[in-house]
Amino acid sequence: MTKRYGAIEAGGTKFVCAVSDENLNVLKRIKIPTTIPAETMNEVFKFFEENPCDAIGIGSFGPIDVNRNSDTYGYITTTPKEGWANYDFLGEMKKRFDVPYAWTTDVNVAAYGELKRGAAKGLDSCVYLTVGTGVGGGGVVNGKLLEGFGHPEMGHMIMRRHPDDKYEGHCPYHKDCLEGLTAGPAVEARHHGVKAYEIPKDDHDWEIEAYYLAQACMDLTVVLSPEMIIFGGGVSKQEQLFPMMRESFKKQMNGYLKTPDLNKYIVHCALGDDAGITGCLLLAQEEAEKANK
Amino acid sequence: MTKRYGAIEAGGTKFVCAVSDENLNVLKRIKIPTTIPAETMNEVFKFFEENPCDAIGIGSFGPIDVNRNSDTYGYITTTPKEGWANYDFLGEMKKRFDVPYAWTTDVNVAAYGELKRGAAKGLDSCVYLTVGTGVGGGGVVNGKLLEGFGHPEMGHMIMRRHPDDKYEGHCPYHKDCLEGLTAGPAVEARHHGVKAYEIPKDDHDWEIEAYYLAQACMDLTVVLSPEMIIFGGGVSKQEQLFPMMRESFKKQMNGYLKTPDLNKYIVHCALGDDAGITGCLLLAQEEAEKANK
Repeated sequence: MTKRYGAIEAGGTKFVCAVSDENLNVLKRIKIPTTIPAETMNEVFKFFEENPCDAIGIGSFGPIDVNRNSDTYGYITTTPKEGWANYDFLGEMKKRFDVPYAWTTDVNVAAYGELKRGAAKGLDSCVYLTVGTGVGGGGVVNGKLLEGFGHPEMGHMIMRRHPDDKYEGHCPYHKDCLEGLTAGPAVEARHHGVKAYEIPKDDHDWEIEAYYLAQACMDLTVVLSPEMIIFGGGVSKQEQLFPMMRESFKKQMNGYLKTPDLNKYIVHCALGDDAGITGCLLLAQEEAEKANK
Repeated sequence: MTKRYGAIEAGGTKFVCAVSDENLNVLKRIKIPTTIPAETMNEVFKFFEENPCDAIGIGSFGPIDVNRNSDTYGYITTTPKEGWANYDFLGEMKKRFDVPYAWTTDVNVAAYGELKRGAAKGLDSCVYLTVGTGVGGGGVVNGKLLEGFGHPEMGHMIMRRHPDDKYEGHCPYHKDCLEGLTAGPAVEARHHGVKAYEIPKDDHDWEIEAYYLAQACMDLTVVLSPEMIIFGGGVSKQEQLFPMMRESFKKQMNGYLKTPDLNKYIVHCALGDDAGITGCLLLAQEEAEKANK
């Protein structure tokens, strides 16, 4: 019998649900605004009642509990988002649909999608950094999702400040961590409220942005030695950032490590908005295969 | 027939070679000063001629080439150490002893030893940081050695400076990276040449040291989410650092992430000088088992 795989990319502003055939061709896809669980999840449940699947992959906004030994495995944990804190996402799904599940973060599924079908196809490792309203990062190491006691929170790496940067940073926990200095709100606040897409491409502020993102690449390189660092998210649609990041990375690394060719190392995502759903479907397929063994 | 496993912990000042029975009990062990390959390696070859093994695990000082797709896989690469740059370590071993090999860094084998038999026993992930004459880091993720295009070089993470620290750092590539600010020579230079073990335990310089090491722990946590961060090396024998690092980590994290209990998260190594050899033997055993399948 032919298989069907399901995907839920659960973002902070919208959910995307999809169902695919066994070759991962998407047959149906819907978008649902992220409001409160009673509303959003009811649409999710309806979608999978109408589109039964043999396995479902979920990539969720976080923080989430990915620790299989934990009592709250499968929960969204401490989000300020109304109604979602301590929401038993995976449990509520399992109650309704008794199938194998994959459960990880929205950025880990994007990393996985890019590794298997996108920019990092054919590699065993990569990092996926999304720079938008926030900064998140996921990764794959030795072909497997990067997780440990929990999941990465790469937006909160501590930064050495750029000497010209007077902006204090907006992270409520760390002020000037990576997210506090480089996410969309930081770019705009540093530029006195001008929208990021209205800041001239040759403005010095982009050098500052590139400096921090390159510093993150440097730290990720010396910690993880990934085969590729892939950028997604709104801010990284500023294409002028890429040559600037590579240049700044080279300066900061200062010849210490031989990395892959920087034009192929610090790159834009290839799958765009499909990275997450692709990763979810791949993980669903793997879970279904594991369950069949 | 009973198996024998071999281990080479190749350090910058000494090599340790060992042979074990099939339960990894060490039967014989020698230390060889690290001089030039013609001298040091001849002793290594002699040891394994006299003590034939079914597989050998090697953890080497670096940088080394761990990329199996590379022409120089198995080489020590760019070290300033006389005679060792571009030395085909693994190739020279294979010429003489036709057995399965494991090949990784000295800190990765220590991480692996601590994970399987030491402080992190029973876990799937950890980081091992050695703080001594230099700073090195290795790791295990999902039970496997942390590698990608190459191996980690955690000593070169970029640091936010402590506001009281006037010392410029001694890393020839990055000046004030983690190694440049926290390795033994940095501790002593910051304290006007006083030997680390002679600096009073309550001196403010230890607060500075703990701040940087805690910052490294913070970055490692948000990137890797390891289940444990283990410290080894001479500087980390300063036991007063541990409570200070935990306190500083807590301040720097500022409640953002729920980590494991810090007393069990930021810890001293359990195997001491045996971590490396233990990791080498475990990896040799795994290679032998793979080869037998």
